[in-house]
Amino acid sequence: MITTETDATHDPARRSWVESAEDPASDFPLQNLPLGRLRRPDEAWRLGVAIGDQALDLGAVAPLLGLADPELERALASGDGNALFALGRPALRALRAAVSALLERDDARLRDDAALRARALLPQAGLELGLPCAIGDYTDYYASVHHATNVGRLFRPDNPLLPNYKWIPIGYHGRASSIVPTGTPVVRPHGQTKADDQDAPTFGPCRLLDYEVEVGAFVGAGNALGAPIPLARAEDHLVGLVLVNDWSARDVQKWEYQPLGPFLAKSFATTISPWVVTLDALAPFRAPAFARDPGDPRPLPYLDDPDDQRAGAFDVAVECWLASARMRAEGVAPVRLSRGRLADMYWSFGQMLAHHASNGCNLRPGDLLASGTVSGPAKEHRGCLLELTVRGQEPITLPTGEVRRFLQDGDEVTLRGRCERPGLRSIGFGPCAGVVVGAPGA
Amino acid sequence: MITTETDATHDPARRSWVESAEDPASDFPLQNLPLGRLRRPDEAWRLGVAIGDQALDLGAVAPLLGLADPELERALASGDGNALFALGRPALRALRAAVSALLERDDARLRDDAALRARALLPQAGLELGLPCAIGDYTDYYASVHHATNVGRLFRPDNPLLPNYKWIPIGYHGRASSIVPTGTPVVRPHGQTKADDQDAPTFGPCRLLDYEVEVGAFVGAGNALGAPIPLARAEDHLVGLVLVNDWSARDVQKWEYQPLGPFLAKSFATTISPWVVTLDALAPFRAPAFARDPGDPRPLPYLDDPDDQRAGAFDVAVECWLASARMRAEGVAPVRLSRGRLADMYWSFGQMLAHHASNGCNLRPGDLLASGTVSGPAKEHRGCLLELTVRGQEPITLPTGEVRRFLQDGDEVTLRGRCERPGLRSIGFGPCAGVVVGAPGA
Repeated sequence: MITTETDATHDPARRSWVESAEDPASDFPLQNLPLGRLRRPDEAWRLGVAIGDQALDLGAVAPLLGLADPELERALASGDGNALFALGRPALRALRAAVSALLERDDARLRDDAALRARALLPQAGLELGLPCAIGDYTDYYASVHHATNVGRLFRPDNPLLPNYKWIPIGYHGRASSIVPTGTPVVRPHGQTKADDQDAPTFGPCRLLDYEVEVGAFVGAGNALGAPIPLARAEDHLVGLVLVNDWSARDVQKWEYQPLGPFLAKSFATTISPWVVTLDALAPFRAPAFARDPGDPRPLPYLDDPDDQRAGAFDVAVECWLASARMRAEGVAPVRLSRGRLADMYWSFGQMLAHHASNGCNLRPGDLLASGTVSGPAKEHRGCLLELTVRGQEPITLPTGEVRRFLQDGDEVTLRGRCERPGLRSIGFGPCAGVVVGAPGA
Repeated sequence: MITTETDATHDPARRSWVESAEDPASDFPLQNLPLGRLRRPDEAWRLGVAIGDQALDLGAVAPLLGLADPELERALASGDGNALFALGRPALRALRAAVSALLERDDARLRDDAALRARALLPQAGLELGLPCAIGDYTDYYASVHHATNVGRLFRPDNPLLPNYKWIPIGYHGRASSIVPTGTPVVRPHGQTKADDQDAPTFGPCRLLDYEVEVGAFVGAGNALGAPIPLARAEDHLVGLVLVNDWSARDVQKWEYQPLGPFLAKSFATTISPWVVTLDALAPFRAPAFARDPGDPRPLPYLDDPDDQRAGAFDVAVECWLASARMRAEGVAPVRLSRGRLADMYWSFGQMLAHHASNGCNLRPGDLLASGTVSGPAKEHRGCLLELTVRGQEPITLPTGEVRRFLQDGDEVTLRGRCERPGLRSIGFGPCAGVVVGAPGA
């Protein structure tokens, strides 16, 4: 079921007693309440909710929430994101309602308990924000037909979009171990590359380092091996969304990717934003799934659902910002390189998940499904430098006069995501950022 | 360091007081001592060692082993395979020596303690043998040049072996969640397939179901993100080997695999044998790495090590046996379909691991690296039906008169692995088996 119904937790008139949440620019007003994992130095990981510039420790306030759900209470006390996600949408919806009530302006329970507030409401700036859970398997899709066409043209000029693209949500398994939270430096990888005019490859630091602007969906309740998930129930198995930067070594990718797909070109780091914006928070920001051209095939029945056509997409604007080391040193503000729309993806997360489980593959709580690069029809929508600079042929000039075809050491890439609609409180994702660090010994 | 030195634990004259270990046909004599995880019904998982047809509960005998290594003792008590593997080769070597001494014919400590023996030495037949650890990431290589050429010819007749093959240990990320222990039924997956003479694909049960005979290596001590592992130290990061059946839906694979590699054609199930045969046990069975043709390129320096050339391979014979449902019902013995040699692989596990970490990708204890299909130069070496029957053009006739191009429902596939050398006690892997079960609703 795709939920577009809203309730009191979405009411734009609702206010919080947490002052920073009332800043219209905040990603985390009372209407959002995304889930994450946090800790203070040398302490254990805790589950939390972002509210304004603060984080609410869910374990510390659990007794106030009146949840009457021992499993949920155990998960909150444990700090185990996988255990929380495994409980599924109904439990997370109950948690959302309870947290929304606790933080609402007129609710005195925590607002007026200074001692508890000091323990349970912590400035995000003083916290380490980790991965929201242990990610068992990470799958990366390729769901933007614009990206697939643009990139396909560069890798296979005579055959940009393969015949299976509009039938299959193309995806591949990514590397789970190297998924890192925002702020983690990204070391420029070494790898094999081969120039077209050379006979043999060489091994050295990647020269064509790129980012990819993506959005990821965390799996909640899993399925047993051998038991597919029908599309109509796909979203019951998703918790929410994060931003994903799928850092990519384009020169390595070009030489290694055939015939089994990208491997070391992607596995050196993948950065995600720390707060999982729940599908429940996103209910007012649903959009119809991709508007296919009349010539496009109708999906096969297991990927075709009228409800998906009604509201299978999410209206999230995703932006990429760049600040070079020199820009940061000179106090020059970051520049926006692109602004795309998640709703421009050819395949929805529901379709990606239903396809994934259609062969009986078991999805587990905490698995991550990423969208692939979010690119749209216009140049400003292009979600990676490979597309934006047309493999370096159309370089970008930064305010300092520096030129970028691909990323240089010291560059900081920051993704931002935001949902905005007239009459609603805007919600956002918080930054997904990383600085490129020079290759070791290079 | 590649260890080919042997010690008392490898002495072929050494005998165990466990009688079944003295059967020359046993995979598990005193010279083997592979590691696994086991439990009795409704009990917790324990770490164990196979000896003959018994399993030794390592937690139960830990006080007898005199390890003087609190971390190792904690790991054994915990039943946590990842914690054990994380300790690395020196701890595992000490464990091997201590277990070998305990089970040696003249050692009375456990032999003469009937009460402890009843708790600690358990018939394998009464146990559930699980995965040896939680597998964080699973990587599948493509290390047999014979397999790559045979399969490449079928998928790309005019371009069988791609130009990168002899430079890069080609691999891709597999699905970790659907790795199952021997004995788990394998449900025939549904999937999209498209016949060459049709305009559109259809969705239904896979018709070209195949096995792949592989060998997998478990990672022990890991590496930090951003810190490559040099080839000379690669094997310090490996624990040992298991057999792997990488079940494959060939019709699904053909339609889905471009441009990002195999996905649902593989992710429905991967079966592994339950006992990890340690690299220490394999020390007497080392072999030189692949003998390259004079025209083959020398590997780039990060993949080139004289020690690898000396003994980078393992002399393991891997066989595939098939028994149809009718054969089993009629009491007809399984037939051997193939017998290959792990030493025929173009790339060694050391090279695969060093390549994997060469971009800084972090490997974690319990990660699994599989070899890809073990095929050799002769037809009897071909490790999958796609190669053996040349995509069904040369079908196999079973003793019952049944014909096989690909697997049918009810077929039981069993992989076996064995190391045999004159003057040494042979060691083996135990079976890696699964029965194909009909697709749901089909």
